[in-house]
Amino acid sequence: MSGPVRATRASTRAAVLDLVRAAGTISRVGLVNASGLTGGTISTVVRGLIDEGLVAETGHAESTGGKRRVMLQLNHFARYAIGVHLDDARITYVLTNLGGAVVARISRAGAAREEPAAVVARMAREVDALIDSAGVERGRILGLGLVSARPARFGPELERATGLPVVLDNDATAAAIGEHWSGGVGVTATFAALYMGSEIGAGVLLGGTTHRGPSGHAGAIGHACLDVDGPPCPCGGRGCLEVLAGPAAVVAAARRDRALSRAAGLTGARTRPRAPVAADFAAISRAARQGDARALALLERSARYVAAAARTLANALDLEALVLTGPSFAIAGSVYLPVLREELDRAFAAHPVAVRLSPSAASAAAIGAAAIVLQSELVPRHQGVRLPDDLAADEPPVFQPA
Amino acid sequence: MSGPVRATRASTRAAVLDLVRAAGTISRVGLVNASGLTGGTISTVVRGLIDEGLVAETGHAESTGGKRRVMLQLNHFARYAIGVHLDDARITYVLTNLGGAVVARISRAGAAREEPAAVVARMAREVDALIDSAGVERGRILGLGLVSARPARFGPELERATGLPVVLDNDATAAAIGEHWSGGVGVTATFAALYMGSEIGAGVLLGGTTHRGPSGHAGAIGHACLDVDGPPCPCGGRGCLEVLAGPAAVVAAARRDRALSRAAGLTGARTRPRAPVAADFAAISRAARQGDARALALLERSARYVAAAARTLANALDLEALVLTGPSFAIAGSVYLPVLREELDRAFAAHPVAVRLSPSAASAAAIGAAAIVLQSELVPRHQGVRLPDDLAADEPPVFQPA
Repeated sequence: MSGPVRATRASTRAAVLDLVRAAGTISRVGLVNASGLTGGTISTVVRGLIDEGLVAETGHAESTGGKRRVMLQLNHFARYAIGVHLDDARITYVLTNLGGAVVARISRAGAAREEPAAVVARMAREVDALIDSAGVERGRILGLGLVSARPARFGPELERATGLPVVLDNDATAAAIGEHWSGGVGVTATFAALYMGSEIGAGVLLGGTTHRGPSGHAGAIGHACLDVDGPPCPCGGRGCLEVLAGPAAVVAAARRDRALSRAAGLTGARTRPRAPVAADFAAISRAARQGDARALALLERSARYVAAAARTLANALDLEALVLTGPSFAIAGSVYLPVLREELDRAFAAHPVAVRLSPSAASAAAIGAAAIVLQSELVPRHQGVRLPDDLAADEPPVFQPA
Repeated sequence: MSGPVRATRASTRAAVLDLVRAAGTISRVGLVNASGLTGGTISTVVRGLIDEGLVAETGHAESTGGKRRVMLQLNHFARYAIGVHLDDARITYVLTNLGGAVVARISRAGAAREEPAAVVARMAREVDALIDSAGVERGRILGLGLVSARPARFGPELERATGLPVVLDNDATAAAIGEHWSGGVGVTATFAALYMGSEIGAGVLLGGTTHRGPSGHAGAIGHACLDVDGPPCPCGGRGCLEVLAGPAAVVAAARRDRALSRAAGLTGARTRPRAPVAADFAAISRAARQGDARALALLERSARYVAAAARTLANALDLEALVLTGPSFAIAGSVYLPVLREELDRAFAAHPVAVRLSPSAASAAAIGAAAIVLQSELVPRHQGVRLPDDLAADEPPVFQPA
């Protein structure tokens, strides 16, 4: 039974560390009350965390009985994490501290046409540049989270090239975790991050816990059906959100409009039909902001479909909140936000749903990637559950007569 | 701290009882291994369960070391639960044993037009008749689960009238729990029960745990949008599954067709426009089975929309399985099943989804209502989590110097 017991000890440590993080400052008695752990266990775990430099004592608080209690807080600069968002259009790198705050950020050209080995070598150099720019000791970096539309296949190669543990995830889920971690939504919130980059997806947290699904594909809202007789989608369905109104559909419609193509300066018209979607979607968004009525009409049409899919998702999951995030919402969010708000105010079956635009929509996935690394250090495996004292589990099995 | 500690003790008891149920037969050593609890705790908890008559010893199994181990099993007839499905068209009552097997079942006229007080009085009489028909001692009945499309408001009145603890839930969620409990899907399955009665909804289990949502409205798939320019829905939206293709929409279309109305013997044509939907939906389904092409075309059109909404739900949640259940699928499932299978085989983005028709679609909600009562006895509050030993939690907080 040494396996489960060790796992439980690690969970207890992580649970206490996360309680300190969430509380800001808290006393040992506060930790006993919040965790359900015994005083002896809290005392032992806290001593270990102080020895590791993760938690510091920080003065005294007056207790109600007049006795003064030593307060504890997270040492935010004891450890760091790196988040990398690998996208066709951009690679975004962030370095965050233990509290999840961004201390350094760089952004480089995307990796649309590079070979995997070249991408790994470049990312390792760019990670070095990120660490150097922040002046952080490499030994204090817990790991690297790498996220993309489809989880990358070169985790082991990147571990070798950087010497850092690497965790992989998809960008929409990472963005949702980043929103949750940064306190933009409640700790036990049931919400989705609608993520729009070159495609549309969603990251889903239910009661504060990530729902990835058994195959890791949950949140595939780009394949919500919005027209049973609609155009065929590569997924095999008809009338999916992605083919009706995703960024690629918006860009394709704009490229068919010669006047708009010229006015918006689209790169991918006739001469470059396979040019990246993201650059042209951004160009259309800029044209709309500058008053181009045809560009605005294309985006508003897209927003109606995205809003209908968002309503379907909110009804299916009983969502409390929706956050719009990702690079395409970063640039076109001001068009989509009012349309989604209006749809969910008017037409949600159960109750109002708060809809807002992420304040860090362009780097949310990278920040979330770093948060996933921090979670593995800070959050117990059975998230949201207070674990009773595990010390008695060392006791050998002894049966009393029935 | 007596509150949390008591809750944890109850959870430990429930966890052990549920392990015995799930295993069929299991030894005390098997329980230690499966639960992570200590031998001492297992010994104490099992002794209590045997004293209560819930668990019985049942012979010996040869262990690999040659030593014989006493095996334990659930005493299925130690306790019972009642499930009641209150529907406009029918009220269905089941009595199940502790293992969830139905030991008695009755079905009575629905309560569409009765006053709440009259419904409560009638249900109390019909529950008495159910208990009498099974010859079960009332003291062995753990409680009554009451489910309906919108959870009923007269729980306290029904408790007073029957003398039984009453738990309330919605019919779609209950049906999903019933499918899970009866072993039709895996213990940790991520699946939805698509429920069709007079309306369409879904009950959702994620990794074996019910997802009701913060307001209890999760699974509102009837308000999935399938046409952004579609007809208005009372929910405020446009093109919802319910208004395009739900049972009421099918019945309305059939009532507009004079020849079909006559052929199918619809009750609610011009003279009774507010007649219950369920009876006419059943009549249309019977006509389709007897070869009426117009009736079949209406149902097949409905099935295309239901299939599209099911695909959206499967994509959003990364479902492994879909079960069709409820009274309207009980009668028309043979039309809907192949259409849903074809859509999910062809068009699901991530992986295949198993689609099947519940073998007890007509009474699934009532069976699930009883299962909810049993769950409160058998499943720990933090479902799916193994709780370490809770006995040490009685230790008072003592702080060692940091």
